[in-house]
Amino acid sequence: MKIYLAGPDVFLPDALDIGRRKAEVCARHGLTGLYPLDNAVDVTAGDASLNIFKGNEAMMIEADAVIANLTPFRGPGADAGTVYELGYMAGRGKLCLGYSNHPSSYADRVRELTGVNSRDGRLIDRHGLTVEDFGLTDNLMMIHALDLYGCALVTPQQAPADLWRDLTAFEACVRMAAERLSPAPMRASS
Amino acid sequence: MKIYLAGPDVFLPDALDIGRRKAEVCARHGLTGLYPLDNAVDVTAGDASLNIFKGNEAMMIEADAVIANLTPFRGPGADAGTVYELGYMAGRGKLCLGYSNHPSSYADRVRELTGVNSRDGRLIDRHGLTVEDFGLTDNLMMIHALDLYGCALVTPQQAPADLWRDLTAFEACVRMAAERLSPAPMRASS
Repeated sequence: MKIYLAGPDVFLPDALDIGRRKAEVCARHGLTGLYPLDNAVDVTAGDASLNIFKGNEAMMIEADAVIANLTPFRGPGADAGTVYELGYMAGRGKLCLGYSNHPSSYADRVRELTGVNSRDGRLIDRHGLTVEDFGLTDNLMMIHALDLYGCALVTPQQAPADLWRDLTAFEACVRMAAERLSPAPMRASS
Repeated sequence: MKIYLAGPDVFLPDALDIGRRKAEVCARHGLTGLYPLDNAVDVTAGDASLNIFKGNEAMMIEADAVIANLTPFRGPGADAGTVYELGYMAGRGKLCLGYSNHPSSYADRVRELTGVNSRDGRLIDRHGLTVEDFGLTDNLMMIHALDLYGCALVTPQQAPADLWRDLTAFEACVRMAAERLSPAPMRASS
């Protein structure tokens, strides 16, 4: 069974190494990890971004499940490319799993980054826009997609020292994916 | 034909009014706009976020197309809930359209927000993470999904004075959706 490994991991300086480590964790659990192509494409070619899109989409179509790294990226929430891919996989009816190495709620992160106020019982940011305040780790569309189409978002009790390279929460997702995707044991006939 | 109106518009203080205006634009072009339920749900109820999820998903399943407001929201890129929904609709093979009222490139916005450097020919942010630098308005997964499954992202030449309430780019999307979704004219038999 094949797992698409979505995440901003592709933007790390050691992206290829992280991809290899994630694929090894999958292999230990009897699964095949498919890691996005962003780093295998010549980014100076004119059609590089379209080639990355097409390669990633082909991998998603091939995969049975997605494990999305939803650790906050360049703002209070998850990486947009990863979120698109989670939505795409949910839309295609694939098994959806995800983790965030940052256990705080979305509202708390907005609080830290921009400051918030209350108005008419709603939390609002400094531009007057409502801040989702359901105690969830990120936007409700992603969180409940995981709840309904896979497993609840995995988060550590405490953020690990290396937010981008600690694979404990990732491995918990792989374990759950392996349980869900492994063929049901044959029932002995009575 | 029905259009799901995805966007962080639901977080504006006048969210319901924006939704009404968007639905009116759709109606003028012979389409039905479906506006997310975030504001029609009692947010103090224990299962409010799940009810919003289920309501929005049911609307997406009912819709023939999505018009996603990808105007940058609380960071350098689009709102995560909107991006999830664009991915979901692409995964289900629906017609995908989108606009951003901010015409600058993603890389330029990261440059403004966090500062960037160059390393080995790649643009990197202050945490050492690669910044996508293809001259695109946002993450390549969303931009090329629009290119391939609908129409190229619509952006104004210049950001309008009211980034959240100007519906010019939105109406351009509605016009294109109406052209794509209207039944082909009957061919006269020869």
